[in-house]
Amino acid sequence: MSMDKHINYTMLCDFYELTMGNGYFETGMADQICYFDVFFRNVPDGGGFAVCAGLEQVVDYIQNLRFSEEDIAYLRSKGCFSEGFLDYLRHFHFAGDIWAVPEGTPIFPGEPILTVRANAIQAQFVETFILLTLNHQSLIATKTNRIVRAAQGRPISEFGSRRAQGPDAAILGARASYIAGCAGTACTQADQLYGSPAGGTMAHSWVQMFPDELTAFRTYCKLYPHNATLLVDTYNVLQSGVPNAIKAFKEILLPQGITSCGIRLDSGDLAYLSRKARKMLDDAGLTDCKIFASNSLDEYIIRDLLLQGAKIDAFGVGERLITSKSEPVFGGVYKLVAIEAKDGTVIPKIKISENPAKITTPHFKKVYRLYDRADGKAFADVVCVHDEVIDDTKPLELFDPDATWKRKTFTNFRAEELLKPIFQGGELVYQLPTIQQARSYCQEQIDLQWDEVKRFENPHNYYVDLSPKLWDIKQKLLEEQG
Amino acid sequence: MSMDKHINYTMLCDFYELTMGNGYFETGMADQICYFDVFFRNVPDGGGFAVCAGLEQVVDYIQNLRFSEEDIAYLRSKGCFSEGFLDYLRHFHFAGDIWAVPEGTPIFPGEPILTVRANAIQAQFVETFILLTLNHQSLIATKTNRIVRAAQGRPISEFGSRRAQGPDAAILGARASYIAGCAGTACTQADQLYGSPAGGTMAHSWVQMFPDELTAFRTYCKLYPHNATLLVDTYNVLQSGVPNAIKAFKEILLPQGITSCGIRLDSGDLAYLSRKARKMLDDAGLTDCKIFASNSLDEYIIRDLLLQGAKIDAFGVGERLITSKSEPVFGGVYKLVAIEAKDGTVIPKIKISENPAKITTPHFKKVYRLYDRADGKAFADVVCVHDEVIDDTKPLELFDPDATWKRKTFTNFRAEELLKPIFQGGELVYQLPTIQQARSYCQEQIDLQWDEVKRFENPHNYYVDLSPKLWDIKQKLLEEQG
Repeated sequence: MSMDKHINYTMLCDFYELTMGNGYFETGMADQICYFDVFFRNVPDGGGFAVCAGLEQVVDYIQNLRFSEEDIAYLRSKGCFSEGFLDYLRHFHFAGDIWAVPEGTPIFPGEPILTVRANAIQAQFVETFILLTLNHQSLIATKTNRIVRAAQGRPISEFGSRRAQGPDAAILGARASYIAGCAGTACTQADQLYGSPAGGTMAHSWVQMFPDELTAFRTYCKLYPHNATLLVDTYNVLQSGVPNAIKAFKEILLPQGITSCGIRLDSGDLAYLSRKARKMLDDAGLTDCKIFASNSLDEYIIRDLLLQGAKIDAFGVGERLITSKSEPVFGGVYKLVAIEAKDGTVIPKIKISENPAKITTPHFKKVYRLYDRADGKAFADVVCVHDEVIDDTKPLELFDPDATWKRKTFTNFRAEELLKPIFQGGELVYQLPTIQQARSYCQEQIDLQWDEVKRFENPHNYYVDLSPKLWDIKQKLLEEQG
Repeated sequence: MSMDKHINYTMLCDFYELTMGNGYFETGMADQICYFDVFFRNVPDGGGFAVCAGLEQVVDYIQNLRFSEEDIAYLRSKGCFSEGFLDYLRHFHFAGDIWAVPEGTPIFPGEPILTVRANAIQAQFVETFILLTLNHQSLIATKTNRIVRAAQGRPISEFGSRRAQGPDAAILGARASYIAGCAGTACTQADQLYGSPAGGTMAHSWVQMFPDELTAFRTYCKLYPHNATLLVDTYNVLQSGVPNAIKAFKEILLPQGITSCGIRLDSGDLAYLSRKARKMLDDAGLTDCKIFASNSLDEYIIRDLLLQGAKIDAFGVGERLITSKSEPVFGGVYKLVAIEAKDGTVIPKIKISENPAKITTPHFKKVYRLYDRADGKAFADVVCVHDEVIDDTKPLELFDPDATWKRKTFTNFRAEELLKPIFQGGELVYQLPTIQQARSYCQEQIDLQWDEVKRFENPHNYYVDLSPKLWDIKQKLLEEQG
């Protein structure tokens, strides 16, 4: 395949979505309306919450779902699909409903983050792409937000394209990292396509290309006097890199009245080197010169560097962000939770398991997030049956779904529905935010979480409770099927 | 961006490739010929070798390098590039030379796996995409080959699309996994685009959609009598799943004379359940029924399952393969190793570092792989200066580059050049193998490695030695710059 060739992701589906679809078609079940939920079970890295991302690409995928004649021919060649089904696919489009949480929302295990209502073929078919997109971008957004929080206000640039798991991982990973708080990216295409600001200065090879380091630095300062961040570790940071940078800044920038400049450390002991470099720069009067640091950083190393008094103004983070190296899988799943009877009655379905953690919460649901009116902070999510309404002018009793004797009544709170309508009858009914809006929204929502939930280790377990009505339905199904 | 929009990866570059390019252009260094090597330092998971993959996508990228007017306009808007450079980019194409090891080749730390010779702008520009492509696909190929070897001949299907890091990670990951020995994939698009055979049968939702498990199984057997692999863990494997599968097979398949069928276990204790299920199937006369297993598998779990006598005929492997979960980064780097004087003399360049492991091997190089003529096995790679020739009719003395007193003379061996010419003067001079050819080549080359190198833990350290000439040049440069 040429990379110039247009790519449509309709065929990016697990093959079983098609064998099942053909089965529903052939057995007269094609019109059976189903409900599927996307949810996840564990927060990566033992964190207190995840950050949802990827909805824009899901919307794009749903809107562009179509099988070409080439696709149909390929599928026919597999020898397992009926001509009736292939003809059905020829006219296939998504005609169902989707609800989802906006990008940038903090999300918690066990609650639906996206719900699909559609006929059996359609609802099943979209599984693979929806999961892969939400799983990937939520993974990167979640990891990025941890790294951003570790840096305590210092900007983080995403630097990881060269270690990303394929071109999309670089580009869409940069997108997700921007929503979750990165200041920018090294990935030019992510800026061009999605608006995460791209930047960058030089590699070691630039320094090696010149007869000596000082010539390389002088040349760069002349070319980019307003964006001169010099990489100072090609030879020796303190004996050559920083002194040469100071020389070049004084010679080229200061006479032009430019005091804002930077150096970048990409190896060695960043805590020690940054303190020494800071002193050398300050002693030379270059107090506005910023120190950037990179080299296999993540939230833990950044936290440690700052605890050790590193004098670092900004961080470049590569492979450990763009692959979420410490935990590179976000385990979102897509489970059947209900079907509709001919008369429109919603019939809840449960998937039981010998492992209680893997039992699904049945039914077509909605989720309320509750905020304390006193401090504004979010304190619980309540998962309800779709037709329930939480009236936040009245006291609300919540109970732990795993220990129902733990009960507490809340007053003075505000309840907000978490899932927004995205598609209705196949039509997009949602105004996608700009990436900047999604980024601001993410920041606001994270600020509404307690610090205890934001801890890296052993965070407070945020409450995700079931309404009494939903809890009863789940128990009844468990007793019937267990 | 609509997913329907054609994607050209020219803009998938770190921004600094462009700031440096503009710098070379503006300072009259645009025509400086440079040599860059791709190499890696550590085998993922502590293995004895990696498997190289991704070259076909590099070729595609190089052939399609071009900036559109939209790209130029975007770059202009960044405010840091000269009009001269933007005009240069308007006519940009790759006119240099590339050598690389074929896809499927076992590769070792420290040796070049791809070399670029081009002018400074071009050679620098292609860094990001070449690294990300080789790093991603080599990562997945390396992990897959470990998993395939653990299964001792039992087929492995790649199942991981839903947990992949973006669409390309799913599709190109499936491609790399096929080269490295997977029997197929669940990813339909990977089959359509790259020919890794796609397959799949049913999810738990299929079983849940019917009034009961037996009806779901019967329906599936009627639809796909020649490909009936039934998922038996929706309710209870031994009490309901396997008995219902046996009933459906006996009722639907056996009367048609079909004895080949399958069940899939996707949860629980796979060693125990597979032994019990095997006995139940055999007792029912279904000795041809295969048992498939999936659920967070990798090479270690598969090895353990087989050691415990699991009766599993084939494995589906998802997230731990498609993300290389235990080590999700392949650390290939791209380093300047030489420049050319005006008269064509190649001037070696070295990148020194306080960390000796990070010192590069300078110069335009070639690599020979030596095979013992007695047993056919590969026993060493020798990195030489580009104009050296190893004559395998004569004895050859090798020495350890880190402990030069360790010397050994070899006779009766065959020497083969590892890097093949791919581009010459911008023209493709390499016949890309089909994916099946690459897969066969990979298998052959792995068979030529010693078992000691293939161990998962503490493998034998395969020799990657330098020729005396290259070793001397490296020492001389170290002394000059150190």
